[in-house]
Amino acid sequence: MKLAIIQFEPKFGDLLQTIEKLKSLLKKAKEADLVVLPELANTGYNFDSKEQAFNLSETINESVFLTFLKDTCKEYQFSVATGFSEIEGEKLYNSSVLIDETGVKSVYRKLHLFMNEKNIFEPGNIDLLVIDYKGIKLGMLVCFDWMFPEAWRKLALLGAELILHPSNLVLPYAQSVIPSYSLVNRVFIATANRIGTEKELTFTGQSIITGTKGEVLARGGLSEEILMVEIDPKKAEDKMITPLNDAFKDRRTDIYE
Amino acid sequence: MKLAIIQFEPKFGDLLQTIEKLKSLLKKAKEADLVVLPELANTGYNFDSKEQAFNLSETINESVFLTFLKDTCKEYQFSVATGFSEIEGEKLYNSSVLIDETGVKSVYRKLHLFMNEKNIFEPGNIDLLVIDYKGIKLGMLVCFDWMFPEAWRKLALLGAELILHPSNLVLPYAQSVIPSYSLVNRVFIATANRIGTEKELTFTGQSIITGTKGEVLARGGLSEEILMVEIDPKKAEDKMITPLNDAFKDRRTDIYE
Repeated sequence: MKLAIIQFEPKFGDLLQTIEKLKSLLKKAKEADLVVLPELANTGYNFDSKEQAFNLSETINESVFLTFLKDTCKEYQFSVATGFSEIEGEKLYNSSVLIDETGVKSVYRKLHLFMNEKNIFEPGNIDLLVIDYKGIKLGMLVCFDWMFPEAWRKLALLGAELILHPSNLVLPYAQSVIPSYSLVNRVFIATANRIGTEKELTFTGQSIITGTKGEVLARGGLSEEILMVEIDPKKAEDKMITPLNDAFKDRRTDIYE
Repeated sequence: MKLAIIQFEPKFGDLLQTIEKLKSLLKKAKEADLVVLPELANTGYNFDSKEQAFNLSETINESVFLTFLKDTCKEYQFSVATGFSEIEGEKLYNSSVLIDETGVKSVYRKLHLFMNEKNIFEPGNIDLLVIDYKGIKLGMLVCFDWMFPEAWRKLALLGAELILHPSNLVLPYAQSVIPSYSLVNRVFIATANRIGTEKELTFTGQSIITGTKGEVLARGGLSEEILMVEIDPKKAEDKMITPLNDAFKDRRTDIYE
């Protein structure tokens, strides 16, 4: 499969301008089978208040942003995973949505909120889950979830072959850790980071796609760009490190738990 | 405290020659407070058979190797953590031993055996544990344990400030992951790898000491050398990533477990 990341700068608070920008970027990525966008791609990141965030966000079912993506998926016959500032009732979630021409296929709500996000979003209230999507076992995480090895491990143990990781990283630490998570869990990872500056925050780009041996398959710089690589997600089914060592079966759960 | 790693080549199956070599190396490291040696430093690594390994190994209580280290600890007023091929009854363990002038302070037995080690050693049968040693909270792991994020996490959650990691690595993967484990667990790590070749195996050196932000404090090359750094283990007590994010308290154990 062809896996793409679109590293770009959403226009804060201006959904239509963001959509205009994405139109041309998604067209450039039309050869892909699956495209990953950054965290909160529909709104931007650095909200002044919860009220402002609420006003800029959408529900899954009535979303101009997701309708645009669904239509684009139909046009180019690919799927998109995107960060999405999600309204449910009176609550906001920092979510990741997998969508294709048939609609939303999976939703994940960020479990570990970073800094001021704690004043805006509710912590995720959905279990970590892996879906079988077109024969590929997909899991999703969002940005600061990177600090918690348990989350990656759990997705891998649930069978994830590819973990999609929309991000708005302001520090470059996560990108240095992603190869390790790929290696010890033997999974593919796509960390789609954004670029640009919103008030005091500058985002660090350097989006990264890693393979099951921790190898860096693609790495972005600090500008707008599209990363695209061909991967075989089934390689992630092979957990044998040596003929005598299985990365999962060798676990000493009798000792850890 | 001054933390040192001695990266060297034990003389396979020749304990007295290994001790001679270590005499001069430990003297060079005499300024250290704690010295870490590689895995299986008393025997070498690449045994032909379990019988050979048994003949070359020692018990904790009657060990020429550990007696030599104890005497050296007295002479230089430091402590040593070393890999140790350990006999207990009819069984062999790939152990790590913390020793000082008063004797053995802690023993860890490798939980995750690599390749042919499974035909020689018993898997570790002691819980992961953190000891309070001279005011520093120490944990130990051995070599291939590096592949299992649960082990590092558990030691960190048990309060480890510094994890000592005697190794005989034949690939350079582990050294690339150690900074990530330091970063996500906010602990110091000292991976003491060996050099040299035994039959078909060549060891990869590049011993590494990392700080609580994943920074590389010292890194060896491919030759015999001593790494020494000054660290403040108490820095590992600070788990605050931001004023609103605690690396441990933010964990979503309700979701992982």
